Amino acid sequence: MNAKPSCWMNKLGLRLPVVQAPMAGSQGSALALAVCGAGGLGSLPAATLSLDALRQELDLLSRQAQGPWNVNFFCHTPPPHDPVREAAWLDALRPLADRFGAVLPVGQAVAGRAPFSPEALEVIRPFRPPVVSFHFGLPAPALVAEIKAWGAQVWSSATTVDEARWLERNGVDVIVAQGLEAGGHRGMFLTADVTTQSGLMALLPQIVRAVQVPVLAAGGIADPQGVRAAMALGAAGVQVGTAYLLSPEAQTHPLHRAALQSSRAGHTALTNVFTGRPARGIVNRAMRELGDGATCLSARAPAFPLAGWAMAPVRAAAEAAGLDDCTPLWAGQAAPLCEPLAAAELTRRLGEAAWAAWERAQAPTA
Amino acid sequence: MNAKPSCWMNKLGLRLPVVQAPMAGSQGSALALAVCGAGGLGSLPAATLSLDALRQELDLLSRQAQGPWNVNFFCHTPPPHDPVREAAWLDALRPLADRFGAVLPVGQAVAGRAPFSPEALEVIRPFRPPVVSFHFGLPAPALVAEIKAWGAQVWSSATTVDEARWLERNGVDVIVAQGLEAGGHRGMFLTADVTTQSGLMALLPQIVRAVQVPVLAAGGIADPQGVRAAMALGAAGVQVGTAYLLSPEAQTHPLHRAALQSSRAGHTALTNVFTGRPARGIVNRAMRELGDGATCLSARAPAFPLAGWAMAPVRAAAEAAGLDDCTPLWAGQAAPLCEPLAAAELTRRLGEAAWAAWERAQAPTA
Repeated sequence: MNAKPSCWMNKLGLRLPVVQAPMAGSQGSALALAVCGAGGLGSLPAATLSLDALRQELDLLSRQAQGPWNVNFFCHTPPPHDPVREAAWLDALRPLADRFGAVLPVGQAVAGRAPFSPEALEVIRPFRPPVVSFHFGLPAPALVAEIKAWGAQVWSSATTVDEARWLERNGVDVIVAQGLEAGGHRGMFLTADVTTQSGLMALLPQIVRAVQVPVLAAGGIADPQGVRAAMALGAAGVQVGTAYLLSPEAQTHPLHRAALQSSRAGHTALTNVFTGRPARGIVNRAMRELGDGATCLSARAPAFPLAGWAMAPVRAAAEAAGLDDCTPLWAGQAAPLCEPLAAAELTRRLGEAAWAAWERAQAPTA
Repeated sequence: MNAKPSCWMNKLGLRLPVVQAPMAGSQGSALALAVCGAGGLGSLPAATLSLDALRQELDLLSRQAQGPWNVNFFCHTPPPHDPVREAAWLDALRPLADRFGAVLPVGQAVAGRAPFSPEALEVIRPFRPPVVSFHFGLPAPALVAEIKAWGAQVWSSATTVDEARWLERNGVDVIVAQGLEAGGHRGMFLTADVTTQSGLMALLPQIVRAVQVPVLAAGGIADPQGVRAAMALGAAGVQVGTAYLLSPEAQTHPLHRAALQSSRAGHTALTNVFTGRPARGIVNRAMRELGDGATCLSARAPAFPLAGWAMAPVRAAAEAAGLDDCTPLWAGQAAPLCEPLAAAELTRRLGEAAWAAWERAQAPTA
């Protein structure tokens, strides 16, 4: 395999065009380090970490990583409290709470996920992250400018062509095109309309045409075949999440890991009942019972991330009974294609497929 | 280009692994003939044709086609009338009717689309169609057996792995894997739950693994790049719809054609307000106003195909005013990638990409 000229990879010193998707709550520096060691870009999700925990993880990652790494933040605007809505949500959750003998919280909703902030910027500054990636758009321009001034690359996800154009105008170095197949939170930030969300097959080439920056493909990619398809659609690389949830280096909850390897993994849906924003997970009781009509989306859920607060004790009670009925089982639509592999092995397989596809794309057509 | 051995194509005598998707209401034998002439498989949609019109079209197609061709039927079970539901639907449509000065129909709903039937079988019998394809499953086993006894191939669409397995068990020769990106009606027949519908990137390889019969890729494929991606995912060929709507040989309504070439083509959604079944089209007023919540799906719509009856005069009145507000603007999510090309030229471009991808897949890996 010859190294191919690719500006974004060369700048980073990245060996394989494979990014491990940041998966808040299911992984820390151990998974990221394993991916980095194999030549891919490992990612540390910061959304559910305290600043102290973030500092500790960055210390491990920055000292031990072979090659570049990524730290990822959510950058939503925290919503105002809405006591009426929060009370109604508690009412909606009461049947589930009663079923599992859980005690619902009282008082104001508590945010389980913090957005990027000037304080977080101070925490990451000494570690000089090679890549800082965001979900739900970008933080304030001054924060973006400061990160870029360190020489770090700033990345973000686009779920529509409009979002990709917006991100390019606002200075991102790389765009992750997130197909509707992707597990976890939709990165959508210019729209709340889920009908705008598109399969990767249609989304990726439209974004590649619309912007000049490199575009990585995310959503529905779990194996070498998916990588080859993404590269054929013009991707500069791939971001893979669900497949890494099965790696031993991930901290995937045992119930989540079991669901991913069961036949249930074949049916995922978008739901907002766990956090308030649409995210894709394996369909379970909470999604079915709280979703409106035939969907797993509820118009009653408090704004992100406040919906999660009321579910926490219900989830804990159900999990204590060995049930995943109220656990967010984040998974992409390609979950049934995922094999449980060590993160390094998975990274190598995906990376080799990407390079081979690249070489073939360069070869003259027969 | 060397001919590659491919059992399904050899049996048919088909030159290019490109199928023009049948698009009821937007095309007839003229488009199918142009595709056949270029080496692809042209399709005649029968769902909206009377038996006499079907006979005339088959006469043209069978006499003039160079190479094999396909005739396509819907095979839904006609629903019983539901006077309460139909009256409620008229009420739901009244604001739109008033807006456009349309007179809503009275009496029982009329079905605008007929399923395959013993009578239709008698009409097609003398023409010996090389391929008879179905949407929404398969007709009664005796009808399938009779068609197969003529030597015709029987095809159908699968939108889930379960549907693909069911179709294989029930004797289909080729499965069309219909990704969520696809325009027009979802072929779903074992489920009515739209959350089961998957992007092609994830669906296609799962179906290819699950069955032995050849699998064609549909949904989000509009150009050579999409063809290469589909072939990388294991497709035996591609079925393309939306791109052919822009061909001069299609009978695409001028308002539909204009919408496809406008920036609005970037936003499609699944809707059941035109027929009663979920189908993907460019979002317009009827979809927005009749859809429940943030969706373009209505729980009030009568069962397929009866929802269409009440919309017909409203659509006609709006169209007479030059508005597509109530017109089904069927389109896939790749509509913005479509170029207006003659059907033969489009077929050749797609076919060459498929062959090149096939050759590369055979070549030893670097």
